[in-house]
This record gives sequence, structure tokens and C-alpha cells, in this order.
Amino acid sequence: MTTQRLDRTVLDRCRQLSTSTLSDALDKRGLPGAVEGLHPLIPEACIAGQAFTLAYLPVGASGGTVGDFIDDPGPGDVVVIDNRGRTDCTVWGNIMTEVAKRNGVEGTVVDGVNRDLQESLSLDYPIWSRQGHMRTGKDRVMLQAVNVPVCLGTVRVEPGDVICADGNGVVVIPLAYIYEVLAVAEDIEHKEEAILQDVRSGMTLGEARGRHGYHVLQTPDPA
Amino acid sequence: MTTQRLDRTVLDRCRQLSTSTLSDALDKRGLPGAVEGLHPLIPEACIAGQAFTLAYLPVGASGGTVGDFIDDPGPGDVVVIDNRGRTDCTVWGNIMTEVAKRNGVEGTVVDGVNRDLQESLSLDYPIWSRQGHMRTGKDRVMLQAVNVPVCLGTVRVEPGDVICADGNGVVVIPLAYIYEVLAVAEDIEHKEEAILQDVRSGMTLGEARGRHGYHVLQTPDPA
Amino acid sequence: MTTQRLDRTVLDRCRQLSTSTLSDALDKRGLPGAVEGLHPLIPEACIAGQAFTLAYLPVGASGGTVGDFIDDPGPGDVVVIDNRGRTDCTVWGNIMTEVAKRNGVEGTVVDGVNRDLQESLSLDYPIWSRQGHMRTGKDRVMLQAVNVPVCLGTVRVEPGDVICADGNGVVVIPLAYIYEVLAVAEDIEHKEEAILQDVRSGMTLGEARGRHGYHVLQTPDPA
Repeated sequence: MTTQRLDRTVLDRCRQLSTSTLSDALDKRGLPGAVEGLHPLIPEACIAGQAFTLAYLPVGASGGTVGDFIDDPGPGDVVVIDNRGRTDCTVWGNIMTEVAKRNGVEGTVVDGVNRDLQESLSLDYPIWSRQGHMRTGKDRVMLQAVNVPVCLGTVRVEPGDVICADGNGVVVIPLAYIYEVLAVAEDIEHKEEAILQDVRSGMTLGEARGRHGYHVLQTPDPA
Repeated sequence: MTTQRLDRTVLDRCRQLSTSTLSDALDKRGLPGAVEGLHPLIPEACIAGQAFTLAYLPVGASGGTVGDFIDDPGPGDVVVIDNRGRTDCTVWGNIMTEVAKRNGVEGTVVDGVNRDLQESLSLDYPIWSRQGHMRTGKDRVMLQAVNVPVCLGTVRVEPGDVICADGNGVVVIPLAYIYEVLAVAEDIEHKEEAILQDVRSGMTLGEARGRHGYHVLQTPDPA
Repeated sequence: MTTQRLDRTVLDRCRQLSTSTLSDALDKRGLPGAVEGLHPLIPEACIAGQAFTLAYLPVGASGGTVGDFIDDPGPGDVVVIDNRGRTDCTVWGNIMTEVAKRNGVEGTVVDGVNRDLQESLSLDYPIWSRQGHMRTGKDRVMLQAVNVPVCLGTVRVEPGDVICADGNGVVVIPLAYIYEVLAVAEDIEHKEEAILQDVRSGMTLGEARGRHGYHVLQTPDPA
């Protein structure tokens, strides 16, 4: 993969922020990135990593396999599987969970369904997907390409883009914007913390929000 | 708010009953009230309070804010947010959770989505909504009116109506009918308890149900 | 019920296998059986039993009751309720949960919704359904027939068919194929275990899968 690798400290900064705050920063910069409809298997999980992308297509008359890509991603990677939202067959299960966990992969995001939730829970390996199911994707879908642009719902993901996910769901931050989005997000986080401090010391929320410009925190700056 | 305030003991009686039993009593009186599609963040939570309603609309060309209403509701109130079932942007998050919890609000019901589920879980603040998401409603929706009639799915909610919610979901009891519905619900509860006692002492369910008229417990009385 | 009763040891063998592996074996034999859209109330639950089926229809002008069948099923039975996916009224609740639990029923599968989730959780009685709700089916649906062929989503269920369910969802194994499907499933399970052992001792997943023929494990044998 020729994608730029981010320093661990950048991913650590992402992990300090909720997907809410990161989504607000994307809004502030006029960028898409909030994925709809993918839910956490482990609501407490919070991950940040770079997208290792997989594009699946329905199998055709000539067949094809689900692939053996899972030996490749490692620490700092999030496996992103685009199965086009299909809920009738799975593209992730227990063996992949065990290998990914052993190899230090941050987590897996599936636009589709996954199986063997119990193994993921018992290994504390985080997954975001539409729902659980049990039927295999073998002989139903095939791995079309690795590390190509894919989609999560209506959100485009390029290989290497930053994937952050928590109890709220999944956001995608384009790699070229990561430092800018992080800076804006940290600024929003500080202002929201200041609002909370004011509220905790007895101010009404209306006063505290007014003092810190809450209602335009995510509003794009005028051009 | 000029709405009639219910005595705390009335809300306590509601909290002793499940939404199942309250829904049966609404059926018995021919009233609507069972809300479809809103799920609990905390399945063990059980609340009763009067509706403090908020009507949101999509933002238009002239803009508008999400509002600063949250300083107003308190003990005995349930915040009811009608965002028309939208799942693409949130109308409830961490700061509102913290203020509502501090002010003694019973809980929040959203026909739409909410964010910062972790903060709600850690503060044990109960929320019912369609699902979780992270994208803000700011610059997407605006607060149109406070304490006006709104909807949760197909169920109408007037300010002051009684909102009861538990692991099964949300029911709405019109304020003018609360004493009547409560009396019917408590009668149903007693009969169901009697059926359970008979069953526990060895009777078949068929016999016990027959003895207590189970199959017409919720059937409206003939006019 | 004239249906063939399976020996307890057969159901025990089913319970040792995940629905994933059983679904793979159904695939290998070209049989349907993977049910979509029914989710576990208790993700850790794992059951196997024979279908005691119930067919519900909407109530008509002449009325009808929800029935008193629940005294009949016992150990080795799974209650299968076909309410055609309706989400506006429930066909399972607290009293039925308590009776079924007392009578040793394995669990309940509803193509529709159920109520009183708290009682099911506190009694550790497993249920799979579309979601929770609270409105009764009384005066909305009626019990049309007991132990007739029914559907779970698009999957046909005959009385006595084997129902296996776990955190992934529900699979249906036709009674006449149970020994054949079990044998294939146990063979798949052994091969997957061998792959995992190889991976745990340092082999890549690609090598381990190649060694054990993973990519055709569920592929139907050529005719």
C-alpha cells in the first residue's frame, strides 16, 4: 500500500474525540463523512485507524472467492468492507475476527452484515455493521478489489482515509484533511468543555451557549 | 406552561405499571397511544412524566437555531422531540443530557436520532429514539415551536400529556383520560396477577385465563 | 402431535454448533433455512428444539381469540409464531414467558414483535423477534391454526422441524435432513477448527485455508 501512514500520535488524538465532535468539524469544513445505519457491536468501543478497503460484488456465472486479504492489515488499520448494504449474506466471521485481533487491527466496519458476534464480543474485537446474520457470503459474493475507493452508505472511502468509530457510529475523514479536521474538532471540544464548565457552576445553558458561540460552532465560515 | 400539573403520586402509580398494561387500558377505552419504532437506550429504565414538547422543522433559506429550551423542563417532565423520524441528523446530545439530568427531567423521547449515547449511559439518563447517530441537527433543522401539539410516529402528543416508557417502548396517555386509564390499567394488572397466581399454583393457563376473563380484558366495553 | 420426536442427544449435538456452521451445512446440501431479520433478546442464548408452530391471521369481522396453546409445548420444543412480520401488535408477553419457562420450553421465535422484555430477561427465557413493542394482539390478530406449516420471513417451517438459534439469529433445518445436515456441519466445524489451530501456530490464514479447502467448504457437491 503506497498510502501515507499517519503517526500513531495523530490516531491517538482522534481517539480522544467523539464521532460527534469529529462530525461537527467535518460540517465546519463543509466535508461529508457521517455514515448512516452502521451500529456498534460493542457500544463502549472507540477506534481510529486508516482504511484498508475491500470491494465486494455479487458472484456471477464464473464464480470467485471471498479472498484471503486478512493477513495483510495490522496496527493502525481499520478493515472497511463495502458489501453494498446487503443483509442476506455475511462477509466477516469468527476466523477473521481471531486473525485480525492477533494482528493488531483496530476494528472492522461492514456496510452489510457479519456473523459470529459471540466470538467478537469474547475477544473484545470491535465491529460496526448493519446487523448480525449467519449465512456465508461464499458463493454469493466475491472479493472484487482491495484498497480501491469504496462506500459506506453514501460516504466515499479512499484507502488510507481515517476511520473513527464509537457508540454513535462511524465517521470518515479524508486523509488530506486530517490535520485540519483534527484542529477544528479540538477547538470545538474546548468550547463545549467550557460550556459544560459554565453549566456545572450554575449558569443556564442558554447563557453558557451564548457566551461561547455554541449555535455557530459547526457553521461553515463564510467564503 | 398553563398545563395542569399532576400530583407526584399519579406519576408514581403510572411507574408501577408496564407500558404493556397501560396500552391494554388505552385499548379498553378505545384510545390510541402505543408508539411504534422508538427503542430504549437503557432497557431497564421505566419513566412517567408530562410531555414538554418540541417541534422541529427542516431549516430553510433564512436559517434558525436548534434552540435553548433545555433550561425550562424539570421534575415531572419528559422532553418529547418531534423531528419527524429523521435519521440523518441528531436533536439531542451530551450537553443536553447533562443539563436535563441535573434539572431532574424524567427522560427524553425523540422521534428521530440522538448522539453521545455513552454520556447518557454513564449518567443513567433514559432516552427512547429510532437509533444512534452523530451528525448534528444544527444548520439542518430548527426549533419551530415549544409546547405545541406534536407527533411520535402516528401518535399525537399534546403538551402535558402523560408519557410512560420502559423496555417495551413508549405510550402516550391523553391528560384528560389519565385517571380513567390508570384505574382500568390497575384493574387489568390485578386480573393478570390473579392469572399468574393460579398458574403458579398448578392450574393450566387455559383454565386460569378462562376463570379471569383474560381474552376480553382489553376488549372495549359495548356501547 | 404425530411428529417424530428427536432424541435429546441430537438436539445436544445441534447446540454444540453455531448457526453459522449449521447454515454452511444447509448451503452445502442446497437447502434454505437462514432466517433474516429476527434478532435475539439475549445474545448469549443458544437453543435447539423442534418447532411447535402457530399461524396467526388478522382478525376479521367475526372476531376470534389469541388462543390458549401455551400449556402444550414442553422440553425439546421451540414455539414458532408466524405473525407475518407485523410490528404493530404483539403475540408474546409476560404470562406466556412464565408458563413456557416453567414447562421447560427451549425458547420462542416470533416473526413479528413481543412484549414484556424485562420479564424474559429476568427469567433468562430466550426470544428471537423483529423488535420489542407493547400493544397487544388481542382483537387485532387471531390464532388460525396450531402445528401447520408456517413461515419465518421467507423460510418455511413444518411442525417438528429443527430450530436452532443463537446470537447470529435463527436457522431452520427440515426434520428429514437433520442427521445429514448435522454430519456435514460437524465436518465443517472440524475443518474450521483445524484452520484456527494452524493460524494459532503461526501460519497465515491464506495458507491455512488453502490446506483445508476453506473456500469450497460450503459449496454444494457437483451433481
